[in-house]
Amino acid sequence: MKKIAVLTTGGDAPGMNTAIRSVVRYGISQKLEVAGVFRGWWGLINEELKILNHRSVSGIISQGGTILKTARCAEFRTREGMERAYETVKKNNIDGLVVIGGNGSFSAALEFGKKFNLPCVGIAASIDNDINGIDATIGTDTAVNTALDAIDKIRDTATSMERIFVVEVMGRASGFIALTVALAGGCEDVIIPERKFDLNLVCHDIVHGNLIGKMSWIIVIAEGAGQAEDIARQVTEMTGLETRTVVLGHVQRGGRPTAFSRGLALNLGKAAVDRLLEGKTGIALGMIAGRIGEVDFETAIQNKALDADSFYQLNKILT
Amino acid sequence: MKKIAVLTTGGDAPGMNTAIRSVVRYGISQKLEVAGVFRGWWGLINEELKILNHRSVSGIISQGGTILKTARCAEFRTREGMERAYETVKKNNIDGLVVIGGNGSFSAALEFGKKFNLPCVGIAASIDNDINGIDATIGTDTAVNTALDAIDKIRDTATSMERIFVVEVMGRASGFIALTVALAGGCEDVIIPERKFDLNLVCHDIVHGNLIGKMSWIIVIAEGAGQAEDIARQVTEMTGLETRTVVLGHVQRGGRPTAFSRGLALNLGKAAVDRLLEGKTGIALGMIAGRIGEVDFETAIQNKALDADSFYQLNKILT
Amino acid sequence: MKKIAVLTTGGDAPGMNTAIRSVVRYGISQKLEVAGVFRGWWGLINEELKILNHRSVSGIISQGGTILKTARCAEFRTREGMERAYETVKKNNIDGLVVIGGNGSFSAALEFGKKFNLPCVGIAASIDNDINGIDATIGTDTAVNTALDAIDKIRDTATSMERIFVVEVMGRASGFIALTVALAGGCEDVIIPERKFDLNLVCHDIVHGNLIGKMSWIIVIAEGAGQAEDIARQVTEMTGLETRTVVLGHVQRGGRPTAFSRGLALNLGKAAVDRLLEGKTGIALGMIAGRIGEVDFETAIQNKALDADSFYQLNKILT
Amino acid sequence: MKKIAVLTTGGDAPGMNTAIRSVVRYGISQKLEVAGVFRGWWGLINEELKILNHRSVSGIISQGGTILKTARCAEFRTREGMERAYETVKKNNIDGLVVIGGNGSFSAALEFGKKFNLPCVGIAASIDNDINGIDATIGTDTAVNTALDAIDKIRDTATSMERIFVVEVMGRASGFIALTVALAGGCEDVIIPERKFDLNLVCHDIVHGNLIGKMSWIIVIAEGAGQAEDIARQVTEMTGLETRTVVLGHVQRGGRPTAFSRGLALNLGKAAVDRLLEGKTGIALGMIAGRIGEVDFETAIQNKALDADSFYQLNKILT
Repeated sequence: MKKIAVLTTGGDAPGMNTAIRSVVRYGISQKLEVAGVFRGWWGLINEELKILNHRSVSGIISQGGTILKTARCAEFRTREGMERAYETVKKNNIDGLVVIGGNGSFSAALEFGKKFNLPCVGIAASIDNDINGIDATIGTDTAVNTALDAIDKIRDTATSMERIFVVEVMGRASGFIALTVALAGGCEDVIIPERKFDLNLVCHDIVHGNLIGKMSWIIVIAEGAGQAEDIARQVTEMTGLETRTVVLGHVQRGGRPTAFSRGLALNLGKAAVDRLLEGKTGIALGMIAGRIGEVDFETAIQNKALDADSFYQLNKILT
Repeated sequence: MKKIAVLTTGGDAPGMNTAIRSVVRYGISQKLEVAGVFRGWWGLINEELKILNHRSVSGIISQGGTILKTARCAEFRTREGMERAYETVKKNNIDGLVVIGGNGSFSAALEFGKKFNLPCVGIAASIDNDINGIDATIGTDTAVNTALDAIDKIRDTATSMERIFVVEVMGRASGFIALTVALAGGCEDVIIPERKFDLNLVCHDIVHGNLIGKMSWIIVIAEGAGQAEDIARQVTEMTGLETRTVVLGHVQRGGRPTAFSRGLALNLGKAAVDRLLEGKTGIALGMIAGRIGEVDFETAIQNKALDADSFYQLNKILT
Repeated sequence: MKKIAVLTTGGDAPGMNTAIRSVVRYGISQKLEVAGVFRGWWGLINEELKILNHRSVSGIISQGGTILKTARCAEFRTREGMERAYETVKKNNIDGLVVIGGNGSFSAALEFGKKFNLPCVGIAASIDNDINGIDATIGTDTAVNTALDAIDKIRDTATSMERIFVVEVMGRASGFIALTVALAGGCEDVIIPERKFDLNLVCHDIVHGNLIGKMSWIIVIAEGAGQAEDIARQVTEMTGLETRTVVLGHVQRGGRPTAFSRGLALNLGKAAVDRLLEGKTGIALGMIAGRIGEVDFETAIQNKALDADSFYQLNKILT
Repeated sequence: MKKIAVLTTGGDAPGMNTAIRSVVRYGISQKLEVAGVFRGWWGLINEELKILNHRSVSGIISQGGTILKTARCAEFRTREGMERAYETVKKNNIDGLVVIGGNGSFSAALEFGKKFNLPCVGIAASIDNDINGIDATIGTDTAVNTALDAIDKIRDTATSMERIFVVEVMGRASGFIALTVALAGGCEDVIIPERKFDLNLVCHDIVHGNLIGKMSWIIVIAEGAGQAEDIARQVTEMTGLETRTVVLGHVQRGGRPTAFSRGLALNLGKAAVDRLLEGKTGIALGMIAGRIGEVDFETAIQNKALDADSFYQLNKILT
């Protein structure tokens, strides 16, 4: 293996740049040439790539986003798209691919790698932390801290104005951010896709709380479990109390990565290069049981279970 | 003057607690008794107040929100409500009132003070910075920095995914936060209530920008000038490009006050007590031309003009 | 078991308050009475404690420091001190003790628990992350992020003024913070107690770097490995280049705990109560291999090894 | 005027990059060519400069430090140095100079501009806020917030461990940061160069405070008024109480500029170009009485007075 390429696909996550820095510099230290592909699979199809050197990745260790950009690319799911992408691979003598991204990225890499017998190693980067078999992905810790910072601020107003807030956080299929933030923020309730939720019960608690002097509530909802606006309207209808909503949205994707997101990204970048050099393919790397570990792409793209009930129960006890 | 009361009304703003601390401790140093009224005018009507001492305000200098809570109170706008409130004033021997809040608060204080000949001094606290005659109010600097922090984060994704973002910030009648944040965040455009806006022109710029390689845009909109969702939809219709929206919302109200919000709050708290002791009434205090200054309530509650055009032009030149 | 007591000892760490909240509220949910002891062992000796209820721990989830205060207490290491402390235990019908702290705290708890046959469970809280057998303690993640934030800021000046900085971080016996921050901050070198360090080599690198245009360096040093001032002086002597020093110091102890520090604290609080109810004693709880786990006090207080060499090598490759 | 040059000199301050962006982009909008000079006066002497375009300053609005770098340059204070610098000016057809920096920078610009009849306009950028006649300089607001953030964190430990802290902040000739931070941080005392200080009195207060239960203190000291270590030692000698010190140091110079530092920088950049085009020279620009204003260099470099006494008195009352 003499030359590898690295790309970022799917939604951006804080720490992707940090991982790119590691793949490039560690790769070079292992005598590899490292090409950066722009805009994910689109860049492979359209041959938008360039050789990166030590200087190319200077100063990006602390920057959110990805200097390689990221994009969705429907064309890559077609046979023709894949073939054009592979043309680029051949033409540029690329011997292996590091794919930084989430489920969608790994699913595409799995197919692409098999079809053309090209070694592909994935680095789990997704703010949702929704890669099956992996405990922690690049970006989640940063996103969770960003959301928590917002929750702490909202708490000031919730307490001062004695209001009920419904706060929507990211997580289309996963309640990880919602649960984590609700617990760390002392939020009174949390609604996630993985768990049935009885709004009547919550409203009963709110009315009861009001009687004994608990006037402010924060309910966190994962975007995949409904819309803040809907929940807020229903709570007002059931309780007669005023509600406010906040949708944190894309703010959660950006910003300087935390120490954890950076450390993980740097170690995963090294590990991905090592795995390619060892001849491995079809695996996604992430933190597993407190260490750098791997799962095969087939496992990674399955639905990830979440121990939602015990998490939820603890939160109810603590608030 | 032997005893004064302090209350916070309207939307909460970071630094209100800091101002309360100053009114209480400086008041005590001037041999005054200081009562804290809970939930604004409602607390005056319902006689919810208590004497605050040095310890009562320990540790709140750095906390967002208001320990006195705040509430809207329709009843206070009725003759009966005002009379009940004045009952509390008389019964508790309150000789003067410090009202921490915004336009609505000062309008109510103006009427109440005149009707019952009660000395009332206002402290300008409003994240919108919309008090006429006053350059800076408590909380604005904090809110602006919170919004700017979010914009910086959104920029990471806007650049990485090459997207157009429409970001809605607070400001019902005022574009101050929007203009300030757009300028400081290098945002490509800004829509505010004080200035006509031609979306066609913006879309033309966007399309032109795309042709020459400028792929990401952030458009800031003040809530009073429209909804992010609407603008985003129109931009997509006109340009055919994908857009994303973020509504920053109540996050802007909370959080640890910045050094500026705290320093202003501490100085205004002292000034308010001094003005009451000097026999003044019917005035609002804030930063004017770089110093602590005052305007009468009648002036304060007028519409505040904003030099939107020159601000806007500078921003267009710099982005 | 009907009544337990909780105390914090040793240096404070962000998340101690969060852990207290969990011990108290979860304890109450398990039908226990929970007493808070003030100033660590000193409070046990001097019978400074009080029953805490749900409200006692309101609002502290996000606050640095410890509402129970912490202190060093030489007297507790004497037989007389221990006996007086046990008097308090007996008199107050305390059936078990939750000790939130680090090595020193666990060493004392081990002796105290054995001597009087009192169930004692420890919660690992220490910014240094130096508890043997435990991967992550409460407070470390927050301290590391605080230090990293400072490093990022120092980088601005190091780059702008093309200077060499020596930055001293906490860690008397442990280089954990130093290594983690150096890696995540892209710092050019790091000096820790666990690893021999050749300053000549670093100075050689610096001089060589200067020749090829690398003008700024950040060297991180753990306090236990020497003083920033000394290193800086030696670097100047050997290279003839100007150096600057920063000693981050106690800033690293405070501040709002991060999401990770809070989540860990909440889970450890619950786990400590559960362990006491299960009849366990003499164990310290922390994160082990990505899960809540335990080690016995004897193990916890041993020196903790650190895989310093591989960490160090990766850092050298990546900078 | 067809071509101007911009340089940054002296200590770096957050917002210098933001000002460079404004000078460049606004200059270009006024049909000027704008050259960036590297490493301050040194770059003028050594002809290290290059033409900057719109893209050259992309993305720096939010970055601390200065992309033009900054350096001290003894040679520029010699006749020969100035003449060599002027050679560069002539050779490159530079018609005017924008000097971003502090007192030293303006003093040099005053001499240089007069000697060679070259229009020079200064932009006040200094974290110390020590430019006479100017109320606010670029960078101060950011530095103050950084220091305040540290103070808030130190407060957690001071309270938890009941300790006396002496915290040294920047300010060689100016107590501005110290006073501002002490007030906003609720610090019990503050020592600055502009005001005599009686340590006996403070120690008396501390001992008295201890008797009535006030166990923690934070004393802020400006670097120009002494060393934290000395003060701490003396306090311990006089009171018998343990003390801790923190020297915040260069951390205060870096980081993302605040909204205020950015807004000021952008407006000053524009104003500097406008003033050059109006034919002005020998003036420094900054915020004066809440607006962009100017003072001549001769005034700017005088010692700046500070209303230290009233400031100090207010702080003593409020803590």
